[in-house]
Amino acid sequence: MEAITEYLAAAKRQFEQGLAAYLKEYPCKYEPLWSAVEYALTSGGKRVRPALVYLGADFCGADAASVEHIAQGLEMIHNYSLVHDDMPCMDDDALRHGKPSVHKAYGEGIAMLAGDALLNMAFERLLSVEDVHSYKAASYIAKASGMCGMVGGQCLDLSNIGGVGADYEKIVAINRLKTSALLRAALCGGAVACGCSGEELESLENYADCLGEIFQIVDDILDITSDSATMGKEVNQDCKNGKVTYASINGVNKARAYIKQLNDKAKGALSQYGVRADKLNAFSDYLLNRAF
Amino acid sequence: MEAITEYLAAAKRQFEQGLAAYLKEYPCKYEPLWSAVEYALTSGGKRVRPALVYLGADFCGADAASVEHIAQGLEMIHNYSLVHDDMPCMDDDALRHGKPSVHKAYGEGIAMLAGDALLNMAFERLLSVEDVHSYKAASYIAKASGMCGMVGGQCLDLSNIGGVGADYEKIVAINRLKTSALLRAALCGGAVACGCSGEELESLENYADCLGEIFQIVDDILDITSDSATMGKEVNQDCKNGKVTYASINGVNKARAYIKQLNDKAKGALSQYGVRADKLNAFSDYLLNRAF
Repeated sequence: MEAITEYLAAAKRQFEQGLAAYLKEYPCKYEPLWSAVEYALTSGGKRVRPALVYLGADFCGADAASVEHIAQGLEMIHNYSLVHDDMPCMDDDALRHGKPSVHKAYGEGIAMLAGDALLNMAFERLLSVEDVHSYKAASYIAKASGMCGMVGGQCLDLSNIGGVGADYEKIVAINRLKTSALLRAALCGGAVACGCSGEELESLENYADCLGEIFQIVDDILDITSDSATMGKEVNQDCKNGKVTYASINGVNKARAYIKQLNDKAKGALSQYGVRADKLNAFSDYLLNRAF
Repeated sequence: MEAITEYLAAAKRQFEQGLAAYLKEYPCKYEPLWSAVEYALTSGGKRVRPALVYLGADFCGADAASVEHIAQGLEMIHNYSLVHDDMPCMDDDALRHGKPSVHKAYGEGIAMLAGDALLNMAFERLLSVEDVHSYKAASYIAKASGMCGMVGGQCLDLSNIGGVGADYEKIVAINRLKTSALLRAALCGGAVACGCSGEELESLENYADCLGEIFQIVDDILDITSDSATMGKEVNQDCKNGKVTYASINGVNKARAYIKQLNDKAKGALSQYGVRADKLNAFSDYLLNRAF
């Protein structure tokens, strides 16, 4: 097994343990809301954002343990957005990670509250460590998850009729806010919490911007090339939904060439850091290779 | 005009000015979400929570200006909860402050996002001042607005069938979380942001707990005694909705006697502070007198 795959598996294990411990100790468990919150947080998912938080700490020479609360906060934000996104007034999805979405399992009222509870809990968690770097990380993340980031992207997505003829530039802009912003916040939030410098932050942001685009295009390629057995979900949805993507406009070959370029650019952003960038470079390669 | 009424009017003016300035400068205004957020924040309301934040600062001998961001954060949290509460899957209210609720004016999807944007914006704002007391205030407020406070109360409210025969103890518990927690967070958040001591915080919490109960029972009394012209809204709703309240169980006279007791208890919590408690005592009297 590749070193990075081992690292990611270990990261996931550590994250799941830490999260379970946090949830076990949480002092207020009003039902059925508490069950809905636990269901939302533990229903699956690759835990990419926690991994990025740990990678941010690693880049700064710090322990993953020191940013456990940041990892948990990011994952709570990510999951609140999924709960609300799946609701009938938004994407109206009955399934998430192959299981009933929260509003299907618990009703819309509790699903609404579960999303609210998760977003709020994220900030309870992010602010739970009395350390000035940690507080700054919380502030940084708050800007990325709100109207200037993820929520702004969801607004654009809602307004974007999409479908045949949808503007590709617009789709790039939507993804940058809706998806990339939080991925960037994970990596950079982890680093800020460890006291990284302004210059280091800027380098990580540049890396993360490339990573976010790779992440999306890999998804787009896999939607075209893969089969549902491998993916564990329906494929060819983008085409069926008339969604315009880089791969659907330019073809899979050009898309693969483009993400290779982005990968070089990502690594270029960290080239001055030598071996400190090793894991992040390996992570970027790992993401890239999913599309080949 | 009484001194406290002047103070509250001036507080409201200051708050509205500060909020308008903040909204004007906000860097990300994706439509129609931004309009919905502005509509939610500026649709009316007495700005009680901002007033409590300023009173918390005043108690500590600090300027209201130093806690402007805390006041704004609290009001954003309050308003996000109103937006989501009014939605069809929750209380399903078409009107708020005499105007169409956000989901009626902008649709459910945007209303959902507007609530999310507001809760997130609250933390952007609360965390915008790089000061350790301010950060601690943000942490304090996060605990009061989440599952251990306001959201927990909303969960209990949703589960509470209410109606004839509903358990009054349960209603007290719901109000304590759903309404009092945030009122307390306003006062105490303001004080924490100004560096109050642990002992001062405890005194303010005791005062605030009484205040929260007075606030609710005054509302209950007015629902029975007032007329819609004076109130600016429908009255006698509690009875029509079969909602059990202190006043409906014990009668208006006993309710008035009870809140007088609570008022004495509130003041008692601050008796050791002499003139520092003057404004808070006057505020408590002011709230009380609305029911006479």
